[in-house]
Amino acid sequence: MYRWPRVNRRRLVGAFVAAALLFVPVLPFSTLAESPSTTDQLPSWNDGKAKQAIIYFVKATTDSSSPNFVPPEKRIATFDQDGTLWVEHPMYTQVIYCLERVPALVKAKPELANVEPFKTVMSFLSGDRAAVEKLSLPDLEKIAAATLTGMTVDEFQAEAEKWITSAKDQRWKRPYTDLVYQPMLEVLSYLRGNNFKTYIVTGGGQDFVRVYSNRVYGIPPEQVVGTAGGTTFSYDQNGEPMLTKDPKLLLNDNFAGKPEGIHFMIGLRPYAGFGNSTGDQQMLEYTGAGDGMRLKMLVLHDDAEREYAYGPAEGLPDTKVGTFTQELFDEGKRDGWIVISMKDDWKTIFAPAKTNP
Amino acid sequence: MYRWPRVNRRRLVGAFVAAALLFVPVLPFSTLAESPSTTDQLPSWNDGKAKQAIIYFVKATTDSSSPNFVPPEKRIATFDQDGTLWVEHPMYTQVIYCLERVPALVKAKPELANVEPFKTVMSFLSGDRAAVEKLSLPDLEKIAAATLTGMTVDEFQAEAEKWITSAKDQRWKRPYTDLVYQPMLEVLSYLRGNNFKTYIVTGGGQDFVRVYSNRVYGIPPEQVVGTAGGTTFSYDQNGEPMLTKDPKLLLNDNFAGKPEGIHFMIGLRPYAGFGNSTGDQQMLEYTGAGDGMRLKMLVLHDDAEREYAYGPAEGLPDTKVGTFTQELFDEGKRDGWIVISMKDDWKTIFAPAKTNP
Repeated sequence: MYRWPRVNRRRLVGAFVAAALLFVPVLPFSTLAESPSTTDQLPSWNDGKAKQAIIYFVKATTDSSSPNFVPPEKRIATFDQDGTLWVEHPMYTQVIYCLERVPALVKAKPELANVEPFKTVMSFLSGDRAAVEKLSLPDLEKIAAATLTGMTVDEFQAEAEKWITSAKDQRWKRPYTDLVYQPMLEVLSYLRGNNFKTYIVTGGGQDFVRVYSNRVYGIPPEQVVGTAGGTTFSYDQNGEPMLTKDPKLLLNDNFAGKPEGIHFMIGLRPYAGFGNSTGDQQMLEYTGAGDGMRLKMLVLHDDAEREYAYGPAEGLPDTKVGTFTQELFDEGKRDGWIVISMKDDWKTIFAPAKTNP
Repeated sequence: MYRWPRVNRRRLVGAFVAAALLFVPVLPFSTLAESPSTTDQLPSWNDGKAKQAIIYFVKATTDSSSPNFVPPEKRIATFDQDGTLWVEHPMYTQVIYCLERVPALVKAKPELANVEPFKTVMSFLSGDRAAVEKLSLPDLEKIAAATLTGMTVDEFQAEAEKWITSAKDQRWKRPYTDLVYQPMLEVLSYLRGNNFKTYIVTGGGQDFVRVYSNRVYGIPPEQVVGTAGGTTFSYDQNGEPMLTKDPKLLLNDNFAGKPEGIHFMIGLRPYAGFGNSTGDQQMLEYTGAGDGMRLKMLVLHDDAEREYAYGPAEGLPDTKVGTFTQELFDEGKRDGWIVISMKDDWKTIFAPAKTNP
């Protein structure tokens, strides 16, 4: 739970009332059967309302004597990826992948070196860090189409796998897949241990995330819902069937596209939803509109030292990558969503360094 | 395995060679560890090559000492529904649903009673059995759009659930969900007992099949891949989020659309695929093109007495519903697919009558 930074007396009264209301559902806590394991399932979380809300939700929905019991086949939990499960600043990892694929494109078709937006990307990769600022949204779409489509699904998987196991983040000098949030890995594991089916619901590319989701998050490819283009089935010169990735967008899995994607791919309304930006608003609204108890959580990046700080909610710096507006913050506050403060709620940010697979 | 009906000497030699080839993979059978359970997992199957092929495949892919071992997270099996898991003649069940929804449409909008194709459907439902023959494909598309879209996903689920639990097949006077093939239920259960994830991959409507898939097949909604339109997220007059089914087709899950849908929804190539018509050809080709051992099976409806007989493969009567061409039969024969003869391979056709839920 986000702790309000500057407290005056009037705010304190408001906070007290809010806290009291928040504690109402916590009151019958002791009446619920204890989990068979008494060890802390969320050791990287500081004690606080966010951690309590997660534990309370799991106990209330899995204890068969609870009025909020949810049968195992309906236990669906959905997680945004960028900024919710791993670092998204200064740029989404998949965008970096697309940019870093451009040299291979240019090598295959040298004439592209003088064609925009590829020319600008080549300057950027040669060290002109400012060049990337020139890229417009249509430019990025062109780059995405050129690097994410046109190949077979097997070729794409091999390329993405090769990159994700070798590329490193500039600030931490560690593979991107190391920059996942340990507290969220614990939530995934805790939910799965209680028979929740955990899904990634990402604005990122479905095929991209599927390459590493099982290894990194324990989430199999079939439980990744993401932005996706179509494929075309055909036969190669030997008559072998193949699937080619084509640029036709089938699912734009962001904003309203998230609940639409959830219905399309899962067909069930989640009982728990986790996000961190305006792109997750509709997913959390859809989650919250179901009956019984639903858990809606938003990660607030308020820790410039250990990770990044951005909002613009609560006076944090504004950003185009993972925008968390004040409006979203206020809606969440009004509707019983829980804001997770990275700074206050998380003891550690990243999982321990792993050796590469 | 389909037994060739008229055998002459030349055919007999060919059949012998084919049988010998088929038995090659069966040779190391005894070297595989026995299943912990020695009870027959497929009691409704007659002993024969089809039953043997299923058992051999499961043992070979789940025994960790087998060269064809498949790790559990990759054990995907896909099943067509209409004609593979339940009866599709004389008409697909979902088409009957659409037709039988028309009176409710006409009641809500009486002017439709004089508008085609609704007028023809009303005549058909009043007893003019020939009227339905007049309906063209565009007519059926209009009826589908009017009965399957425009409502919220919750409203659709409630309507479809109400119908499927009360409507009855004309020939058997039993609910459609009773007309599922007991031998196939045993295959689903046998595969799941060996950690295969079983999926329905149907040309039928994804949202329609999801209404009863768990109850009837033990397949949860998220493991149903079917023809699907988009939905639109919006808010009702109380500001509550809602999803409305719209007529825009996102996935035409038939023919080439089946492997495309499998990649989109699952992201993994199946190890086992089951179908019964040309609509399943590409799914079985895609399944077969993977490495290691893959099981490809086609149900042949050759039992007019206990169910229906149609092809036109092998001289069976032609049909527009679930067409099994001679070309498909020959391709399967050439590429090691197994044809299941309903007449010869299945001891019983239907599961025992159930009381309605």
